[in-house]
Amino acid sequence: MTDFKQILEGSITTPQGFSAGSIHAGLKTQGTAHLDLGIIYSHFPATVAGTFTTNKVRSPSVVLSEDNVSSGNAQAIVANSGCANCCVGQQGLKDALEISQLTAKKLDIPLEDVLVCSTGIIGVELPMALLRTGIDAISLIDNGGHEFAQAIMTTDVSPKEYAVSFNVRGENITLGGCAKGAGMVHPNMATMLCFLTTDASVNSTFLKSVLKRVVGSSFNMISVDNDTSTNDSVLILANGASGLSPIVEGTEDAEIFERALVLVCTQLAKMVARDAEGATKLIEATVQGAESLLDARLAARSVVSSILVKTAVYGNDPNWGRVMMALGKSGANIEESKVSLFINDVCVMESGLPIPFFKEAVTANMRKPEVRFQIQLNLGTASATGWGCDMSPEYITVNSAYTT
Amino acid sequence: MTDFKQILEGSITTPQGFSAGSIHAGLKTQGTAHLDLGIIYSHFPATVAGTFTTNKVRSPSVVLSEDNVSSGNAQAIVANSGCANCCVGQQGLKDALEISQLTAKKLDIPLEDVLVCSTGIIGVELPMALLRTGIDAISLIDNGGHEFAQAIMTTDVSPKEYAVSFNVRGENITLGGCAKGAGMVHPNMATMLCFLTTDASVNSTFLKSVLKRVVGSSFNMISVDNDTSTNDSVLILANGASGLSPIVEGTEDAEIFERALVLVCTQLAKMVARDAEGATKLIEATVQGAESLLDARLAARSVVSSILVKTAVYGNDPNWGRVMMALGKSGANIEESKVSLFINDVCVMESGLPIPFFKEAVTANMRKPEVRFQIQLNLGTASATGWGCDMSPEYITVNSAYTT
Repeated sequence: MTDFKQILEGSITTPQGFSAGSIHAGLKTQGTAHLDLGIIYSHFPATVAGTFTTNKVRSPSVVLSEDNVSSGNAQAIVANSGCANCCVGQQGLKDALEISQLTAKKLDIPLEDVLVCSTGIIGVELPMALLRTGIDAISLIDNGGHEFAQAIMTTDVSPKEYAVSFNVRGENITLGGCAKGAGMVHPNMATMLCFLTTDASVNSTFLKSVLKRVVGSSFNMISVDNDTSTNDSVLILANGASGLSPIVEGTEDAEIFERALVLVCTQLAKMVARDAEGATKLIEATVQGAESLLDARLAARSVVSSILVKTAVYGNDPNWGRVMMALGKSGANIEESKVSLFINDVCVMESGLPIPFFKEAVTANMRKPEVRFQIQLNLGTASATGWGCDMSPEYITVNSAYTT
Repeated sequence: MTDFKQILEGSITTPQGFSAGSIHAGLKTQGTAHLDLGIIYSHFPATVAGTFTTNKVRSPSVVLSEDNVSSGNAQAIVANSGCANCCVGQQGLKDALEISQLTAKKLDIPLEDVLVCSTGIIGVELPMALLRTGIDAISLIDNGGHEFAQAIMTTDVSPKEYAVSFNVRGENITLGGCAKGAGMVHPNMATMLCFLTTDASVNSTFLKSVLKRVVGSSFNMISVDNDTSTNDSVLILANGASGLSPIVEGTEDAEIFERALVLVCTQLAKMVARDAEGATKLIEATVQGAESLLDARLAARSVVSSILVKTAVYGNDPNWGRVMMALGKSGANIEESKVSLFINDVCVMESGLPIPFFKEAVTANMRKPEVRFQIQLNLGTASATGWGCDMSPEYITVNSAYTT
């Protein structure tokens, strides 16, 4: 069994051969962090994989990055907060291209090895004068990861970073990541951005397939408000600086790497859910005994996405009828008479029938910062876990307070 | 062109040959109306059609009614508020059956001609002692419609009723309806119930198909919080008391009847959306130029369902980026560069590009009790309209305040 060791204060520059730099270019006038423009640079050409928003309205930054990721190679990521570069017509693609050109020139790398990410307000053009000066002024440093994690924040309360080290064939491998939240960005919807770096050498085909699988069980299993951003992106760079020969699909090494990636992405996804705007608690829904993985995921996502479940959790209300409603509408196969349900380990429903549980105790228990729903469908062997957050009046206030 | 004349203070007992009765049986301890049990009775055997919740967890009251509706004939509906008769195992079906037996005996009609509806708390059994006494004590009266509309209310602020009269082949026909809200029911989710009555004689096959179509463009186009109740039901009784020979599919009469049904159901659906818990405004989204009716409906529903759109409307914020996001994630075919968008008739976006609109004026305009988004996709000829409500801090307060 391989040990995965969390690296305290680890970041995207903890893996060997990565540096980063960030600056306040002047785009961001609101939010908890001052920095608003950053670059991640791999000292060596790296393999790359990415997953992108399914929204049909998408930022030209996403369009450009998806195009550049398709080659399987990249060496730098430039990201800005404050402006999403979205719904601005042809100008958006011109600007994303210019940003990649400026970055490629600065780093002396091929244009197609630069990826661009933007997050912030929709419908206003990027202030290119600020970006030109900003990109030029950025200094790349070996431990620049923490500052980069701040530069991508919008209304996130805290930066989100996680890194682990583990052993493959006697070599020490490091995997680091940072993310910004799907909590709502005043005054527009949020973007979930995640950047992952590793000094493992990873075969491009495997990197693509493993990222897709892992995003499916981590970032695609969180829900803040059912809305899908125009800019969501998850990117991973693997630069091979550890010296280990490439990890390929179907090997024991690949299995170890996948488990490391699951660990980092799950931790970051939970941080995103917990730090959503107005959230006071993390909700975790584990569905077991589903007929298929798809059913398990549909059911878990439906519970953490339900506004009625979210408001009940905010009020410490063990309102299990809402969980049953969410399961029933999920699209997953459910047989009411077979469902058992636990709230923070207390059984409140068994075989479809309410248990006369001690409500005051469960309510007190729900005041904890994590509320867990454990659901047993008793129809099969598939399971999945989803994460969300409660919904408080603060959420409404933040998301309605733009003009008034 | 047939005139549809709204009947002021019309109700489900306005059509000939219907009476109704209601009582406070003692089930409802909260809510704005006192009455909690009612019966609608047709003096003659009637044709019936119904549409029911798609939630896989459903009340035995729904199961029983769906079964009885399948024969195409019915003569009475008994409905209670306060308790949903849901998630209580086998007892739920026994209770629903006993309610139908008590009602059939009281009215001296066949058991299978009675439909049962329940709305309220999930996971507690119906207090049958109260229901037995209540059903026995109900007196049916000719103008009992208004009281029945109150007896089905939960946290609805107002009863919802609408009736029209119109002419078919020289005969005067009346169609009446009442509904209760999909606003949230403290302490459980709401049920949308709607009851329709007409003194037209309507062929059973046509009644079924026309109800399905009309529900698709009215009640299925409203959204309060994306949650689907375990008890949603829409029922229509056509008793032929007007003396007119049966209306059948494909005739001019059928077309007139369908337009009347659209009118009544749309009015009731809008009342439900407007009266949702915590709502301060009605949101109407009209999508035109879609490639298909399905696309138009997906797009309109996505806009009125988006929590970010709802919170923006609450704050009078002309945040059109959120509308674009909602269109993009709807599943409908969208080409960003072709979309035009109006807020209360003011163009804020044309051909995918923001218009420098006078924001203060649009904001002031959004303070009205109705906010309309008019969306032109410019891809085809299909159109659809959806309705929803804004989301206020009051919504969260109401839906989290059960235990604390």
